[in-house]
Amino acid sequence: MNFCSSCGSRVNLLIPAGDNRHRYVCESCGMIHYQNPNVVTGCIPEWEGRILLCRRAIEPRYGTWTLPAGFLENGESSMFGAAREAEEEANAQIREMTLFCVYSIPHINQVYTMYRGVLDKGLASPGEESLEVMLASEDEVPWDNLSFPVIVETLKLYYRDKQTGNFSTHYGEIIRLDKKTVRVEHY
Amino acid sequence: MNFCSSCGSRVNLLIPAGDNRHRYVCESCGMIHYQNPNVVTGCIPEWEGRILLCRRAIEPRYGTWTLPAGFLENGESSMFGAAREAEEEANAQIREMTLFCVYSIPHINQVYTMYRGVLDKGLASPGEESLEVMLASEDEVPWDNLSFPVIVETLKLYYRDKQTGNFSTHYGEIIRLDKKTVRVEHY
Repeated sequence: MNFCSSCGSRVNLLIPAGDNRHRYVCESCGMIHYQNPNVVTGCIPEWEGRILLCRRAIEPRYGTWTLPAGFLENGESSMFGAAREAEEEANAQIREMTLFCVYSIPHINQVYTMYRGVLDKGLASPGEESLEVMLASEDEVPWDNLSFPVIVETLKLYYRDKQTGNFSTHYGEIIRLDKKTVRVEHY
Repeated sequence: MNFCSSCGSRVNLLIPAGDNRHRYVCESCGMIHYQNPNVVTGCIPEWEGRILLCRRAIEPRYGTWTLPAGFLENGESSMFGAAREAEEEANAQIREMTLFCVYSIPHINQVYTMYRGVLDKGLASPGEESLEVMLASEDEVPWDNLSFPVIVETLKLYYRDKQTGNFSTHYGEIIRLDKKTVRVEHY
């Protein structure tokens, strides 16, 4: 950030009075430009023992498999956003949604909210951001070609709960240790 | 938003190619400036059957009572952020936190994550953003002078669960109907 989005003047990185963090502050109008984490919201669409996966047609991680998910938009709830993402990425209608997990990913400033839901009529097809979609049974999940650690973790938790038949709301934090390794903290 | 925070040129509100929403786009460098909801994170600090409330020393809702909560910062998890807010607003250390509720508030572009936790040693005192703090029993909660609908809702759910002894993770949406009325949807 170099310029004030309100008045167009230069911004400086400084700690405003009464604050304890560096913020971008306009040197002309004084506006403080806070930068905060984003919510990514998505779901596990279920249909007759299978789940809907989408193969990404966009970067990052082009060509890998993922659950439908994306940035929550202004003016929508996290559940509505999850349903919208399923519609955009897989032309899928999701109903009977329940909150499955909430994971923070501090190193990329994201909080994921993932729901379980029923894939209406089992119908799905690739949206603009997907190369293809599939309804995968557990042994068809492409574990070595999933998009992000949070998706791997969500699916692991999902199949663990499915085995017991007892689904609860999971939450925790995904911590990057180095370029290739993350640690998952379940609270 | 009037100017590009990257290059300082004017932005225009338009729907970028491949998108379906209006975004601020720089007319010079082409950068798209997305605007997304913020996460507010907080907690219900418990101590020997009482809970910690803070009286706000800041606008909005100066002078009303609230639970410690505030905007999640970049680089932190929602649970860590909730603990930090309790420390900043009430010099309180919170331990053994569990996720209590997740509520979206679409009309103000916020998602609340609220935790339950133990107020360490029962110790608290007003931080810079609080006029005073109190350890309130249920019949001491100032229901008519709470800060925000989401705080009222969180406390209602809390005391309902407390009565049954069965705490679960709640989630839903708070919808503004008109200037003075909200509707709460529990999913």
